[in-house]
Parts: sequence; C-alpha cells; structure tokens
Amino acid sequence: MKPIEVFQKYLRQTVVVEVKGGKTFRGVLDGFDQHMNIVLNSTVEVLADGKTAPCGTTLFRGDSVLYVSP
Amino acid sequence: MKPIEVFQKYLRQTVVVEVKGGKTFRGVLDGFDQHMNIVLNSTVEVLADGKTAPCGTTLFRGDSVLYVSP
Amino acid sequence: MKPIEVFQKYLRQTVVVEVKGGKTFRGVLDGFDQHMNIVLNSTVEVLADGKTAPCGTTLFRGDSVLYVSP
Amino acid sequence: MKPIEVFQKYLRQTVVVEVKGGKTFRGVLDGFDQHMNIVLNSTVEVLADGKTAPCGTTLFRGDSVLYVSP
Amino acid sequence: MKPIEVFQKYLRQTVVVEVKGGKTFRGVLDGFDQHMNIVLNSTVEVLADGKTAPCGTTLFRGDSVLYVSP
Amino acid sequence: MKPIEVFQKYLRQTVVVEVKGGKTFRGVLDGFDQHMNIVLNSTVEVLADGKTAPCGTTLFRGDSVLYVSP
Amino acid sequence: MKPIEVFQKYLRQTVVVEVKGGKTFRGVLDGFDQHMNIVLNSTVEVLADGKTAPCGTTLFRGDSVLYVSP
Repeated sequence: MKPIEVFQKYLRQTVVVEVKGGKTFRGVLDGFDQHMNIVLNSTVEVLADGKTAPCGTTLFRGDSVLYVSP
Repeated sequence: MKPIEVFQKYLRQTVVVEVKGGKTFRGVLDGFDQHMNIVLNSTVEVLADGKTAPCGTTLFRGDSVLYVSP
Repeated sequence: MKPIEVFQKYLRQTVVVEVKGGKTFRGVLDGFDQHMNIVLNSTVEVLADGKTAPCGTTLFRGDSVLYVSP
Repeated sequence: MKPIEVFQKYLRQTVVVEVKGGKTFRGVLDGFDQHMNIVLNSTVEVLADGKTAPCGTTLFRGDSVLYVSP
Repeated sequence: MKPIEVFQKYLRQTVVVEVKGGKTFRGVLDGFDQHMNIVLNSTVEVLADGKTAPCGTTLFRGDSVLYVSP
Repeated sequence: MKPIEVFQKYLRQTVVVEVKGGKTFRGVLDGFDQHMNIVLNSTVEVLADGKTAPCGTTLFRGDSVLYVSP
Repeated sequence: MKPIEVFQKYLRQTVVVEVKGGKTFRGVLDGFDQHMNIVLNSTVEVLADGKTAPCGTTLFRGDSVLYVSP
C-alpha cells in the first residue's frame, strides 16, 4: 500500500496523529493534501494520563506530523 | 474537507494556533496564504495556567505552526 | 545496494523505524514512496522497557524518519 | 488581511518578534522580504524579567521567526 | 576530495554514522544516493558505554545524518 | 530598509551573529551571499560570562543564523 | 570575501566545524561542494575537556553545519 493510500483507506475513520514536540491527537480523518496536511474532525488531544481534551476540527501542518496510525 | 478549506471555514472565527516550541495562541482568523502563514486578530497567548496575555494582530510564520483548531 | 533498494528488499518483512524525537516502531513494511514516507502493517511502538504498544497500519512521514533497519 | 499585508500595516511601527529557541525582540519594523526576513530598528531583546537589552538595527532570518505581533 | 568521493572511497569499508538526536552507528557502507541517504551492512548501534547493539542492514535518511567517518 | 541592505550597511563593521543552539559570535562582517551565509573576520565567540574566545575568520551557514545585529 | 571563498582560502588548512547538536570537530579541509557538505582529513572530535578523539577523513552533511572557523 502506497503512503497516500493509507490516507484514502482511513478517510472517515478515527486515526491518531503525533506531531513534533510530542503531542498526540485522535480524530476522524476528514481530509488531506499532497503536503500531508491533515484535517481531523471531532479531534481530541490525548494527554499523558490517557485523558482527552476536545479541540474540534483541527488542521495539522504536514511537516509537523510524525506519523498517522489507526 | 481539504486542509485549505479549514482556513476558509474558520475565517472570522476564533481559532487556536500552537507553534513549534510549545506556545499556544488564540485569536480571530483574519487571513492566510498558501504557505500556511496565518494572521490572527485580537490574539492572546494562552499561558500554562490558563490565563491569557494580549498580543494584538499577530502574524504566524507557516513553518512554525503545528496545528490550527477552533 | 542503493537506498531505495533497501525498501524493495524489506517489502513484506519486519522492520524497525525510529522517528525524530526518539520513538521507535516495528512493523511489516507495506509501502513507501520517493519521499521516504513509509507504511508499516501490524505496527507496534517499542517502549523503553522493551514492551510494545500496538498501533496498526501506520504511515510515517518521510522527513520524520531517522533510519530503517530490520 | 493577507499575511504580507501585516508587514505593510506594521511598517514603521513597533513590533515584537519571537525567534526559534525562545528569545523575544521588540523594535520598529523597517523592512521585510518575501522570505519573511525582517529588519527592526531600535531593537531590544526582551529578557525574562521584562528588562531589555538594546541591540540596534537587527536582521532576523525568516525561517528563525515564529511570529510577529504589535 | 569532493564530498561525494568520500562515499566512493568508503564503499565496502566500515564507517561510523551519527544521526540527529545523537545516536551513533557503525557498519559497512553498502550504498548511498545524491540525497546522502546511506545504506550500511552489518550495522551496530554504538551505545554510550561502548557496547554495541546489532541492527543489520540499515537505511539512514540523508537529512538525519550529521556526519560519516571511518 | 530591505533585509539584504542590512548586510550592505554593516559590511566592514562589527556585528553580532546568534546561531541555532544559542551560541553568539561577534566579528567584522566581511561577506555574505543570497542564502545568508555570512563571513566574519576577527570573530570571537561571546561566552555566557561575557568573556570572548577568538575564532578568526568564520563562515556561518545561513540556515543556522537566527539574527544579525550591530 | 564571499562565503564560498572562505572554503577556497581554508583548503588544505586546519579548520574547526561545529555541527547541530553541539559537537565540534577539527581537521584539514579537503573538500566541499555547493551544499556546504565538507570533507576534513585527520579529523578529531574536540571534547568538552579539550581532549580529542581521532575520527579520520570525515564527511559532514552541509545542513548539519553551524559554522566553520580556522
């Protein structure tokens, strides 16, 4: 599976995104582009203690993304 | 929703921007460009204790932005 | 062996990926592209104590990758 | 307002610039270019205790800039 | 000697590669490309205490490489 | 004043250069190019205690430069 | 003196190279290219206590270089 196909596979599904600096977010993948900019709906930040903080439809800048997992 | 559409959706609305290094800001999205440079009006820095420090119309350099959320 | 051939050699095999910031993951190499974006299946994060945390089919952004080893 | 217009709006006015690594400077915006390289006149570094250290007409490299605010 | 010639000189020889973040590896240089992506065979990570941890044929992403020495 | 004009203004004058990672240098600006690579003559590193360590004609890589001030 | 001329001036002479992350090396400049990739002969790492550790002909990746001084 090509990297770009992972985005297509996960569209409308819940994914986890970790960004540079160490914060982790979970939300429903709503969009992406060729720079790997990512839009998540119903996003929550996943805190160190496992709790979550809601942050709504969030746009992640591609070059701040470390990885995307389900 | 494509990443660029998030900016269009949030125009004139209050958003949160986190930049590399960990500072977080909140303000009214007033503009953006294709590099994801962002202009916020009535910007405040959101401090660790939840207090805010006003910093007016602020320009964020695109490549310092980690994410934008409502 | 050219760098790109390493990916071809390891396709469908288990590899380790370390990303910037220090996290290490292990999974089955399922895809890659010219930016060195990488797709692993059955991915686990390898924790400091050697334990693992499952994270499924994961997409790693090329410029967050430090190295790939078997 | 487009990002570039923020520079035009703030020309000849006092702005604050934070650079990567965390230092903050205040000065009169005297020039800029398309890379967001910035020239401030009468620049002072704003120290942690609120005191300032004068550093004259200073050129900030665009990719070291996090944000510019008034 | 041009930088690229160092790679040609060290081909099939043991080299040390340090990557961003501080880890150091040693292995037999098996390949490289114009981005300075590097392939080492029989790679070991060189730990702080001088011990080594084997990690096989490893691909290092060019922009994570600080330097290559014999 | 355009950013590039700052270099022209400071040519043959003493300037301070801070690089990523926090070290600060002082020397006589002897040259520059469009990447903001900078050559200082009679360079000294300015240490935390205000003392200086001489390091001669030094070339600073543009993308390691945070700012240049007099 | 243009930045590239510094390299020409220092060819076959001993220079100091500091790389991102803070390590410092000393060696005889043997080559360079337009990306500021640098080859040093008879390289030693300069340790914090002023001692040195020999590391032979070493290739430094341009974008890991902070500065080059004599």
